[in-house]
Amino acid sequence: MADGPAPKRRREEAAAGPGAPFPLGSVRLRRVLRDSAREKAAFVHGQVPGPAGQPEDAVLILERTPFREEEIEELLRAHSKLELQTRNDIYSTYRLYPPPELSEIKATVVYPATEKHLQKYLHQEVHLIRETWEDYKNITLPFIQSQSFSIQWVYNILEKKAEADRIIHENPDPCNGFVLVPDFKWNQNQLEDLYLIALIQRRDVKSLRDLTAEHLPLLRNILQEGKEAIRKRFGVPGSQLRIYLHYQPSYYHLHVHFTALGYDAPGSCAERAHLLEDVLDNLLLDAGYYQKRALTFALRADEPLLKKFQEVGRV
Amino acid sequence: MADGPAPKRRREEAAAGPGAPFPLGSVRLRRVLRDSAREKAAFVHGQVPGPAGQPEDAVLILERTPFREEEIEELLRAHSKLELQTRNDIYSTYRLYPPPELSEIKATVVYPATEKHLQKYLHQEVHLIRETWEDYKNITLPFIQSQSFSIQWVYNILEKKAEADRIIHENPDPCNGFVLVPDFKWNQNQLEDLYLIALIQRRDVKSLRDLTAEHLPLLRNILQEGKEAIRKRFGVPGSQLRIYLHYQPSYYHLHVHFTALGYDAPGSCAERAHLLEDVLDNLLLDAGYYQKRALTFALRADEPLLKKFQEVGRV
Repeated sequence: MADGPAPKRRREEAAAGPGAPFPLGSVRLRRVLRDSAREKAAFVHGQVPGPAGQPEDAVLILERTPFREEEIEELLRAHSKLELQTRNDIYSTYRLYPPPELSEIKATVVYPATEKHLQKYLHQEVHLIRETWEDYKNITLPFIQSQSFSIQWVYNILEKKAEADRIIHENPDPCNGFVLVPDFKWNQNQLEDLYLIALIQRRDVKSLRDLTAEHLPLLRNILQEGKEAIRKRFGVPGSQLRIYLHYQPSYYHLHVHFTALGYDAPGSCAERAHLLEDVLDNLLLDAGYYQKRALTFALRADEPLLKKFQEVGRV
Repeated sequence: MADGPAPKRRREEAAAGPGAPFPLGSVRLRRVLRDSAREKAAFVHGQVPGPAGQPEDAVLILERTPFREEEIEELLRAHSKLELQTRNDIYSTYRLYPPPELSEIKATVVYPATEKHLQKYLHQEVHLIRETWEDYKNITLPFIQSQSFSIQWVYNILEKKAEADRIIHENPDPCNGFVLVPDFKWNQNQLEDLYLIALIQRRDVKSLRDLTAEHLPLLRNILQEGKEAIRKRFGVPGSQLRIYLHYQPSYYHLHVHFTALGYDAPGSCAERAHLLEDVLDNLLLDAGYYQKRALTFALRADEPLLKKFQEVGRV
């Protein structure tokens, strides 16, 4: 590649290889996997030329960014075009076309993307599962163990091989410690959609289902130190944070979500989010609570785990 | 005004008068009333010079627009600037600055705006309360009893004095019966945002806090008959329904919400919604579960109950 025809061409070719920036401008759109009109986000299946010229899959998540207070006056003044659309009594609507610097889009790239990544973002019908502990042991756990969804990126963070500069707080205790980092969904420009993740140091707790009274010190550390770190760094008090675990989680290394209470974060719904304080109280009430209680979650029609439940007539 | 110094000046002065386009570029920002990070919308209190030069109030609602499939390739190519933000394994994030024509903002103007308009859009800060059973007995219950929230409208439905034609299902048993009606928020035109409410016949159960094992037959009836009635009438199976109670509820006569699982209904978040199946299992586990466990809920800054918690130093 060192003797490519021109510097520009060389840069583009190199771009698809490991270590180089992703060639966003060369993406060919295959299809829109999902378009969230409410959230102004699009999940896109695209392809870029791979090292040997063959098309390679990528998932692009495009998301428009929230308004920032300090930009609003400028936005109203600096628009390049303004069109009146409708008018009725005291109400009128306009289309306004702001300059690029006030129109930031957050783009998340998954590259190379596997079929699994594409499926993950594809819009699907959803089914509710009521998973008993027996279901977990007989269906869910064997399924999780049979999958090899890589969580290398989690280990990279815990080992400071990636994102070390993004760590907001760390408790290094191998048993009761954790690392707090901003979630990828948050661009950190405004507090309205504040979103952080606490990743536990130990690697033997997959999800809520594994939790027992043994984990109370770990969970208390996450609750207390996480709140305190967010208050110190971002000035947001604990009473304005929604702190919860997902079940099912999207990856099986225990983690806790911290989101701004006023932010209607995706996945904060009752059929997925379990408030950390409720988890603590349930474990205090009964050390084996999560090995007894049925848990509800939703699965999309294409998720292999749903098929497992269907095969044994549990859906 | 006809002899204003220059045409441009004249146009701007005229702009604030009736009939002329609203002078969006002359708006002075007073404050952001509410910023919805998830929906990428901002509600702004602004002022423009009125006919006599005095500042006049306006509300501006700014909303970024959803992505359009046909624009996505162009967006990726035509960005004026692209910045790599983070990179970890197969994931990377970028900031992308698209041209004005791909960054349309919808602006809705309410002008002139009254104080009522400003209040309507004003964001209220939200605080999380962790209510113990003692808090309930000492703060919440006396507060509920001191209020005279009328629930006559509920009794009207139960007694067929109102909405009798809207009843989807009824179990007339005075102890374990209920009435199922469409919620007012649902216009019944489409199933995507299906929303129904089950109102219990008996009048002595205010909320989740009153529930004990005694209420298991009632709750089971609601779960089973409610699902069955919705499947029959609307063709939506129980596995695609989110069935839950609110705590705090908006009125203190026990009721259960049935919403389409795919619909991100307001109030379906983990800090307010309690899945009926979880409630049933908790009562089976411990008949006095809801008289023991702390419960979390959010209160807006202007809610009187928040003041009660503040007075005794519980917030």
